[in-house]
Amino acid sequence: MTPISPELEEFLDKQIVGVLATQAEGGRPRQSVVYYARDGERLLVTTEAERHKSKDVRRTGWASLCVMGHDRPFPSATFSGHAEILTDGIGPATAAVMQRIMGLDAAPEPQSDEALAGVGRVILAITVERVGPVTYLEAG
Amino acid sequence: MTPISPELEEFLDKQIVGVLATQAEGGRPRQSVVYYARDGERLLVTTEAERHKSKDVRRTGWASLCVMGHDRPFPSATFSGHAEILTDGIGPATAAVMQRIMGLDAAPEPQSDEALAGVGRVILAITVERVGPVTYLEAG
Repeated sequence: MTPISPELEEFLDKQIVGVLATQAEGGRPRQSVVYYARDGERLLVTTEAERHKSKDVRRTGWASLCVMGHDRPFPSATFSGHAEILTDGIGPATAAVMQRIMGLDAAPEPQSDEALAGVGRVILAITVERVGPVTYLEAG
Repeated sequence: MTPISPELEEFLDKQIVGVLATQAEGGRPRQSVVYYARDGERLLVTTEAERHKSKDVRRTGWASLCVMGHDRPFPSATFSGHAEILTDGIGPATAAVMQRIMGLDAAPEPQSDEALAGVGRVILAITVERVGPVTYLEAG
């Protein structure tokens, strides 16, 4: 397990979106922009159970998130590791990501798992095991 | 072959960096931030022959580039297709990417293939065959 350096923690908490990569059926990388929240060494994304990215993670157990700053020289870091699709106790994690999506000062009231299941929402959680490449930031 | 819509052309020409994904040995996606230039339906990245991304492209013949805008709502599009590593006649393409890296009004004088080979530089070229997902932009 690679811990995330304090500078990378600060970077992750300052940024709100990243490019998620999963391995599609057939092997090719599949990329999309997602909002995320950090919970210690885990990166959390709210998505839908039937999305390709969710199916990829269920099948492969792995994902990568590349996060970049939005001004030159575009500092960036790629975080990857074991990934899973969570459906139990995901109200607070979903609220944490929604706070960042909506730019709120505080997280909205967490919804119940039943309410989230009713709209097909799940949490895609990456346990960061590897960090790199890192550009214009200290990897620690 | 999927043509790139005029709106996506404009988007690609306005942005300068994207997240490149290649398939690493073992199958997992490998991501890194790169500067690119567009030449019609091709996306060009200057890199080094011995980088992992170059080896991945030589081995798999495929790559993906996810480009995003840098303000909410973070418009984005992922472009993917056949990819190859070029070493012949790459002076102008290298100069076109360098112009964007350096933020110059005009491309610098192209270097010879021999000079570029001397410093190990190659062009990673993606012929865009597939566009998607696209968010907050018209795919065309």
